[in-house]
This record gives sequence, C-alpha cells and structure tokens, in this order.
Amino acid sequence: MVSAEARLRELAIRLPQAPQPFGAYAEAVQTGNLLFLTGMMPTVDQKPKYVGRIGKELSTEDGKEAAYIAGLNALAVAQEYLGSLDKVARVVRLGVYMATSGDSINMAQVADGASELFKDIFGVDKMSARLVIGVASLPLGVPIELEVILESKA
Amino acid sequence: MVSAEARLRELAIRLPQAPQPFGAYAEAVQTGNLLFLTGMMPTVDQKPKYVGRIGKELSTEDGKEAAYIAGLNALAVAQEYLGSLDKVARVVRLGVYMATSGDSINMAQVADGASELFKDIFGVDKMSARLVIGVASLPLGVPIELEVILESKA
Amino acid sequence: MVSAEARLRELAIRLPQAPQPFGAYAEAVQTGNLLFLTGMMPTVDQKPKYVGRIGKELSTEDGKEAAYIAGLNALAVAQEYLGSLDKVARVVRLGVYMATSGDSINMAQVADGASELFKDIFGVDKMSARLVIGVASLPLGVPIELEVILESKA
Repeated sequence: MVSAEARLRELAIRLPQAPQPFGAYAEAVQTGNLLFLTGMMPTVDQKPKYVGRIGKELSTEDGKEAAYIAGLNALAVAQEYLGSLDKVARVVRLGVYMATSGDSINMAQVADGASELFKDIFGVDKMSARLVIGVASLPLGVPIELEVILESKA
Repeated sequence: MVSAEARLRELAIRLPQAPQPFGAYAEAVQTGNLLFLTGMMPTVDQKPKYVGRIGKELSTEDGKEAAYIAGLNALAVAQEYLGSLDKVARVVRLGVYMATSGDSINMAQVADGASELFKDIFGVDKMSARLVIGVASLPLGVPIELEVILESKA
Repeated sequence: MVSAEARLRELAIRLPQAPQPFGAYAEAVQTGNLLFLTGMMPTVDQKPKYVGRIGKELSTEDGKEAAYIAGLNALAVAQEYLGSLDKVARVVRLGVYMATSGDSINMAQVADGASELFKDIFGVDKMSARLVIGVASLPLGVPIELEVILESKA
C-alpha cells in the first residue's frame, strides 16, 4: 500500500496553501466517504498563474503545466480537509475543463498534467475516471479548471 | 438545526411548480442518500425566462437573477421528490454552467445567484462545493444551467 | 424486473469492444455501488466515427447517432467492468456534452440518442437525471461526449 504522504516527500512536492472560496461555497464537501472538491484552478497565492486559451494564447505545454498546478491545489484542499493525503483511498473522478478557441489541440496530453500527478501520488492501480472537455471560458480567464471527487478511507 | 421549510417561509419565497422532463430522463434520481437533479434552467412555466449569453446579450445581473430562478427550480424538484426540503441534509455539489461569448465576466458573482439562495435556505455551514464554467451554448438558448447533487437525511 | 442483457438480445444490439484509455486514467471506477465512467465518445475501434460540431459540420440527426454510439461504448465499459449489464441497477446521471458553434440546435433531441438507448435497456422507470450542455470543443474533434454514473446492484 503506497503512502501518498510518503510519495509527496519522495517526489519533493511541496503542496501550496489550499485556495480559499471567493463566493458562497466551500472548497470541499464530504458525504459518506465521497469528498467533492470545488473547481480547482491554476492559481498561486489566489492569483491565476496562467490566463488565456490553450491553442491560442497558450501552448499545450502551458496547459499541461496549468493542469499540474490546479492538481496541486486539489491535493492541498484534500490534505487540509482530511488531515492527511493518506486518508485518500483514490481519486474517483477527475473532470478537466479547458478553455480553447475551438481549435484542435491534444486535450488528453493537457489533462495528463493532472492525471499523472495523481497517478504518481496514489498509484497506477488507483487512476480515476476522467472527463475532458473544451469550454468557452473559465473564471478569472484561466485555461484549466479541475473538478475532483475523491474517496476517503473508512 | 435550521428548518429549510421555515426558512422559505421567513424569506417569503414561494417555490414554482417543478419543471417536467422534455426527453427520456427524470428530473431527480436518488441513489443511497445522494439525490442527483437534472440540469435546471431559468424557466418559468416551462418557458425560458432569459435567453442569451452573459456578457453579450445579457448582463452579469441578468445572469445572477437567472441563476436564482434556476435555483428555485432545483429546490422545487427536490421538495417534490423528497416531500419536504427539511429532508435535505445539504447541497453537496453545485455545477454552474453559463453561456458566455468567451469575454471576461465575473462568473463567481453570477454563480452566487444560486449559491446565496441555497446558503439562505440550508445555512452557512452547509454550503456546497462548486464548479463554475463558461460554455458555448445551453438548451433553449438559456444563459444558465445548474447541476445539483443533494444529500438527503437518513 | 427487466434483464438488461435480455433486452440487448431482444433489440439485436451487439456491443462494441470497450474503449481503452489513452492517458493516465481508467475507463471505470467503482466506489460503493456507484460506477463512474470516463467520458465516452462516438468512437468505433478507437477512432472517431464523427468529427465536427452539431449545427455546423454535422446535423442534429448526426449528433443523435453520435450520442447513440457513445452510449453503446458506455454500455460496453459497464458490461466489461461489472461482468454483466444485469448488475446495473440504473443509470443515475447522464452528462451530455456536445460541440456546437453556439448556434441554436435541439439539444434535447441529440441527447435522446443516448437517453433512449438507456431507457430501452434498463426500463422507463429507471431513466437517469441528465445534464445537457454545448461546449467549444471535445477530444479528437468529436461532436459528443457522455459522462455516465451508474448504480450497481448490491
């Protein structure tokens, strides 16, 4: 059994401060052993690290990096809510919403910025189901938003 | 413990008739104590109250009002399905999909039209996780669609 | 009680090979008795059967057929994961994401391509909740992506 906290240390990943809500919502809500996270964006210190559309103002590589940063924010919220990432049984569902201009881009590659992070932390046998779609625009003009549902350990 | 039905009366909110399906789906499906609602639109008497994109044909304030109306429809469906809103433990997850032209708008402010309604009814300690995205178009040309997952009381 | 496998035979529906992941994710993840499927596309033998936007390069009828094909893929994944569709209690939630140019199209009609398939297999009293939205673009340029949550039998 992989320890997610040990994996963080092995990979020298330092999680950021968990983002805070800017509206009438919570960053995480648990029901039974499902933990629903709010849409996570590629913000650092509450400010967007990337602004623009993938395939237009931003490259696929930028998009993948943005997905990684949003993924770190998701982990930070889960860690804060549950006390430790070792209480995460797995990521059940990952939604990857990316702002595009409608042009053809390699969406799977962008989404892997988050998926590979989660695989590295929770293990290859615990990969999530995934939805990937291209949207018109996202809050703050960011290129990526992630929606994560986690299963917590009993 | 707040009574959601008492809160409705205090706030003088009269819920509309619950919307009816116009396709091969149900307005609400329960599994365990999760209640999944169909996408709720800003309709009154099954007709769109608003048509257009936020930031283009419609203002941010219109969008917020549309989110409020869609939120009332969600409450009406939950009340009809469960018999009483007092059987709702909380809103677990709120998805806010808004039609935009890709221009920058204050999406959090629009989404708060629904989130603040739910906070007023279920309490500030029961706020949901939230996903907010800007989409190309929505059914009937409406500016807002909400997707709500509720937790029912055991 | 309808047998979903018997219904498949009655309707002479042959399910395709289940699609395979092309990234760091799984096609299906179960938590409790909820089965989350990855976004299903209108692919045949891992290749897109349709490419383009509904209301632009593709007609509403094309879109409905694409939704049907994506629905078959969803059933194939569920059958492979659970061993038999008779272990499906119902489709809980169906998300229908369709690529549009922002023009007005009959989205409910397109979505019914998948919803009617599921109704035919699982029964009219087991119809799902449904979200239908128009998006800017989808992976591989396909017109339709479905996100399905199923309830499995205990």
